[in-house]
Amino acid sequence: KQERPQDIEELKQGVLLGERARLARAITLIESNSPQHFEYAQSLLQSIMTHTGKSIRIGISGVPGAGKSTFIEAFGTFLCQAGHKVAVLAVDPSSSINGGSILGDKTRMEELARNPRAFIRPSPSEGTLGGVHRKTRETMLLCEAAGFDVILVETVGVGQSEAIVRGMVDFFLLLALTGAGDELQGMKKGILELVDMIVVNKADGSNKTAALRTKSEYSRILHFLKSPTKGWQAKSLTCSSLNGEGIPALWEVIGDFTELTKQSGVFEERRRMQAKEWLYSLVNEQLQTLFFQNERIKRMLPQLENEVIAGKKTVTQAVHEAFINFYK
Amino acid sequence: KQERPQDIEELKQGVLLGERARLARAITLIESNSPQHFEYAQSLLQSIMTHTGKSIRIGISGVPGAGKSTFIEAFGTFLCQAGHKVAVLAVDPSSSINGGSILGDKTRMEELARNPRAFIRPSPSEGTLGGVHRKTRETMLLCEAAGFDVILVETVGVGQSEAIVRGMVDFFLLLALTGAGDELQGMKKGILELVDMIVVNKADGSNKTAALRTKSEYSRILHFLKSPTKGWQAKSLTCSSLNGEGIPALWEVIGDFTELTKQSGVFEERRRMQAKEWLYSLVNEQLQTLFFQNERIKRMLPQLENEVIAGKKTVTQAVHEAFINFYK
Repeated sequence: KQERPQDIEELKQGVLLGERARLARAITLIESNSPQHFEYAQSLLQSIMTHTGKSIRIGISGVPGAGKSTFIEAFGTFLCQAGHKVAVLAVDPSSSINGGSILGDKTRMEELARNPRAFIRPSPSEGTLGGVHRKTRETMLLCEAAGFDVILVETVGVGQSEAIVRGMVDFFLLLALTGAGDELQGMKKGILELVDMIVVNKADGSNKTAALRTKSEYSRILHFLKSPTKGWQAKSLTCSSLNGEGIPALWEVIGDFTELTKQSGVFEERRRMQAKEWLYSLVNEQLQTLFFQNERIKRMLPQLENEVIAGKKTVTQAVHEAFINFYK
Repeated sequence: KQERPQDIEELKQGVLLGERARLARAITLIESNSPQHFEYAQSLLQSIMTHTGKSIRIGISGVPGAGKSTFIEAFGTFLCQAGHKVAVLAVDPSSSINGGSILGDKTRMEELARNPRAFIRPSPSEGTLGGVHRKTRETMLLCEAAGFDVILVETVGVGQSEAIVRGMVDFFLLLALTGAGDELQGMKKGILELVDMIVVNKADGSNKTAALRTKSEYSRILHFLKSPTKGWQAKSLTCSSLNGEGIPALWEVIGDFTELTKQSGVFEERRRMQAKEWLYSLVNEQLQTLFFQNERIKRMLPQLENEVIAGKKTVTQAVHEAFINFYK
């Protein structure tokens, strides 16, 4: 479907009125890879910029099996009941090794998907992780303009995706399971230093005691690590996505976080830094494309790489030769 | 002083014979920023490549006050007595905020500096950290060609320097002090995940008991973290740079590490990966220079950055405009 300039104005009005069908079409426009759509998408985005930013952006990650979908279903439903409007986005490309976007199958959050106060958008289906990351950020802006005041950004944790999500949200929540000692060792390097909160899920039935023990274990470890948010000590909690226990409490902690960081200026400062870092990472991404997609570079690079690895050529010399060809 | 082609051959022979004066001149050539010296330096490096790589490269970091200089003095002297030839290099630019290269003042390692089996080279005095990092890597190659079989690369930990050093060494050692709990919280984010060994220094006199306790505390924490080296569990030890206690033991552990990783292939694999990563990081550095030193980009970037931070312009749009000007 072609979007034309008059459609852009219509899309804009629809988004600002919070109409889900037009919001969905606007997102599809953002996700399009066609150059003409790019122009339209950017002018749409530009026109809604003043209506963005008025949400709390929450990143959610967790090992496979931690129950991210059921947690988001329970958490999102709770938020809707409390009067919020909740958008759920995902950053992982559906082409990932894990075999498809976790949100590609909406039926996994049936209740939330049917809730008129919620909007669930699967991960963009094409593009590099960098591209997906751009699209998710811009989708977040559209959702904010459409009046969604809680944005949940989910990641299954492919590659550097947690760090990328950390770079686009205000608050980062890690979903964990019981058995902290063993779990922790299987945990991705550096992830604990990204989190503002660890939630030990499945704290119900016979698992409750173990969950509480795990929670304490995480508290103790978090105490040793530097928090990603100035003035905030990362916290560890338990919850049950099954019976909803613990969910109001964790939302209260997120409220404390928001109040504290808005008062100290840390909240706004992070958003400013994130915009700046996004600018520079996008510049960098384009530079890389410019160089590595260059036909001469593509032809010569494998051999240069082999010579360097074999110690036959110095790295400086190899790069020097590559750039001589790049400038040609 | 000008180095000419016939001098390059002379320098090469001098380096291969392990002559310290010619090695020092060769390093000065590498560190030169003149384009002609660059050509000579690269041809010198290229000619000694087959004589490089036969050392153990050890990175050493630690908080200010951990006693890095006295430790390196004690450790280096011990290694010389054991028949090794030791080169000590530093990666931090002397223009750093901390006020000068830690090794600029050689008198801080008086005994080692006088030892004929040791070679101490202060940090290159000019250039970006990226530039310094290139020069330190190439200096390391020259030292290896000159027969130094233990290379100690020291960093005071400005910016990303520990990660950069981790990317050029086989083994990474962190020097720590007693009081682990408090110390750890002041410790740089992510540093513990770079280390193969933590050495609690100043384990002497009335401080010994506390040092042993701190060592155990670190062991416990390291147990929770993923080691940077496949098949190796990072270890925690104590030592006294004052009386030399613990130094033979830590050298033995480094020996175990080398044997284990050479047998498993991890040692060689890391070196191959490091060469490859260095290649790509240098390409990236040059791309950044190309873009950010462009006059049109320099003129327009501050305003674009402000517009993005203020939410007046989308990041994608800003980058789009910048590249239109870059291609002009």
